Amino acid sequence: MGNLAELDTPAALVDARRMQRNIARMQDRLDVLGVRFRPHVKTSKSLPVVQAQLAAGAHGITVSTLKEAEQFFEAGITDILYAVCMAPGKLPHVLRLRRAGCDLKVITDSVAAAQAIAAFGREQGEVFEVWIEVDVDGHRSGIPPESDMLIDVGRALHEGGMKLGGVMAHAGSSYEFDDPEALQKVAEQERSGTVRAAQRLRDAGLPCPVVSVGSTPTALSATQLEGVTEVRAGVYVFFDLVMRNVGVCAFDDIALSVLTTVIGHQEDKGWAIVDAGWMAMSRDRGTERQKCDFGYGLVCTQDGAPLEGYVLSGANQEHGILSRAGGVDREIAARFPVGTRLRILPNHACATAAQHPEYHAILADGRIATWPRFYGW
Amino acid sequence: MGNLAELDTPAALVDARRMQRNIARMQDRLDVLGVRFRPHVKTSKSLPVVQAQLAAGAHGITVSTLKEAEQFFEAGITDILYAVCMAPGKLPHVLRLRRAGCDLKVITDSVAAAQAIAAFGREQGEVFEVWIEVDVDGHRSGIPPESDMLIDVGRALHEGGMKLGGVMAHAGSSYEFDDPEALQKVAEQERSGTVRAAQRLRDAGLPCPVVSVGSTPTALSATQLEGVTEVRAGVYVFFDLVMRNVGVCAFDDIALSVLTTVIGHQEDKGWAIVDAGWMAMSRDRGTERQKCDFGYGLVCTQDGAPLEGYVLSGANQEHGILSRAGGVDREIAARFPVGTRLRILPNHACATAAQHPEYHAILADGRIATWPRFYGW
Repeated sequence: MGNLAELDTPAALVDARRMQRNIARMQDRLDVLGVRFRPHVKTSKSLPVVQAQLAAGAHGITVSTLKEAEQFFEAGITDILYAVCMAPGKLPHVLRLRRAGCDLKVITDSVAAAQAIAAFGREQGEVFEVWIEVDVDGHRSGIPPESDMLIDVGRALHEGGMKLGGVMAHAGSSYEFDDPEALQKVAEQERSGTVRAAQRLRDAGLPCPVVSVGSTPTALSATQLEGVTEVRAGVYVFFDLVMRNVGVCAFDDIALSVLTTVIGHQEDKGWAIVDAGWMAMSRDRGTERQKCDFGYGLVCTQDGAPLEGYVLSGANQEHGILSRAGGVDREIAARFPVGTRLRILPNHACATAAQHPEYHAILADGRIATWPRFYGW
Repeated sequence: MGNLAELDTPAALVDARRMQRNIARMQDRLDVLGVRFRPHVKTSKSLPVVQAQLAAGAHGITVSTLKEAEQFFEAGITDILYAVCMAPGKLPHVLRLRRAGCDLKVITDSVAAAQAIAAFGREQGEVFEVWIEVDVDGHRSGIPPESDMLIDVGRALHEGGMKLGGVMAHAGSSYEFDDPEALQKVAEQERSGTVRAAQRLRDAGLPCPVVSVGSTPTALSATQLEGVTEVRAGVYVFFDLVMRNVGVCAFDDIALSVLTTVIGHQEDKGWAIVDAGWMAMSRDRGTERQKCDFGYGLVCTQDGAPLEGYVLSGANQEHGILSRAGGVDREIAARFPVGTRLRILPNHACATAAQHPEYHAILADGRIATWPRFYGW
């Protein structure tokens, strides 16, 4: 346990009170909507964060890599959904985890992969649980609810001897909106498309116990989730400037920031140079096409108060350029002398967090705890 | 030692033959120009890579973080330049390394930091070696060669009892050009500005033994380096698509790539979905504003042959969208079936490498060695 003033910079900070508030907000909401919650742990990749999500009432976790499955299974979590379509070459890894006692579920959206999973499962005497990914918004992966392929994939799994566990969808397009009505519409489209896919599988005589949907914006915008059994969301745990622009959080909900130090100035340009470049912030420019562009991040005091108008307008590997948006601040060197410590709120928490080997969590009593996180595959 | 077919994906590959060729090319060039070479190790952060650079004739290394200094000092390298302006709060860390025997040099571009370094040095009885950063192109940090501040900083250090070791500049603007003549001009501007700053310090009665310049494009474009004592460059060791667009390497010089697997398709859109998203490629879109935009990377066969026209056109955390630039490929699923393994050349090697805990180096005999790399601060 240290304190903020002793931390080397750049460093990833987590405001634990904000994080707990974000966790409670999502869990309460989904409790009211009557569905289970399976948080996506790709955002934090950190056990203390995930333990807080489970303690608040989450059922199981969602992962984006088998490394995440492995790490959290080792920590005692067994109910895990690997929510990236299965590459047949990864099946031996999944098999090892399942044989060790991990209730690891995989997904697919193609007949070819479904057949490969079933063939490998039969060969190994393993009944893999597989969910089918449904495409509700043309965003990325999945099978459209009305497609014949949906039934073909279901049959390839079920008749191939695997456990067809359900359907899942992710309305990634929700990130592109910023008004509540549009977000409610995307949420309803995600719900209705996924429920429809489940219905079509059941009508074809196939099992479909789980109906899983989710993204942070839709989970926080849905007004009813009839037919849905569980919701998934990840970035809500920290929130970020992209989510603030989408309209589902405020600046003071953002629990992740990067602590940085001023190392120089270019006074005639109105620049302060800080030691948080893209290595500390990530290259994510997610707010570039949104209603408010924060460059590489919004500048706050060391205590976390936003200095509105001041952003990281540029970033090299270990250099950030701090300036006032929309005009040269000729007082920049006096305002932020060399050695000044600041916090930067990130565009995209998942990307920024991934650049750091650990979080420095500011606890409710002001002390700092070190929360390790992992990376890689 | 494994082989390519056994590697889990996504994975960072280094073609060791290409890397050795890149190292030899740079070293030979700087030998001919009669200057010493101090490679920037922020690109690789990996000991086997740095050992190959030193074995080829490099003198010392350049680092972007004190973690790099620490790690390479532990491996026996002592001549180290920390090439990011010194934050006074990091001086105790620098002191620890110097007291342990590391010949660690730091830089500054402000009177405030120079005074803080000198005050801390006197307090601790340590003569820090400090170089002054010179601004040759308005790109980021440094003091313009003709500025009065240059002499003020020099005096603050020298009269403050520190060792004024030299001047250094980095023509970061060189990345913005793509014709040899313009690059030669930037290289000459970098050289002449830095030499001029050294001359002004000497004229003021201050010592300035080292004159250090460099960036990969200028190091490969300079036709003469009179007055310069050493050159620094980093990304040349791997090269990347940004450098290919700048015109200082060809596709088949690029030594870093990401091995990936096809996990699905959206046939009507002409998309193959692969398991290399931005977590594996980084969010760097450095070719976006260059003459040829490669999206998140250029697609190659598993053996490394470029499939020109095929790029990662989109990326989510663990999903890449592979498509043909300029037209829907309706044969995408037949061309790249589920399970197909491909290599993706990165926009920016420093950013892509940073996402991976290790490199899988393909040696001249085809075997694969694991080269660890580190991250963080």
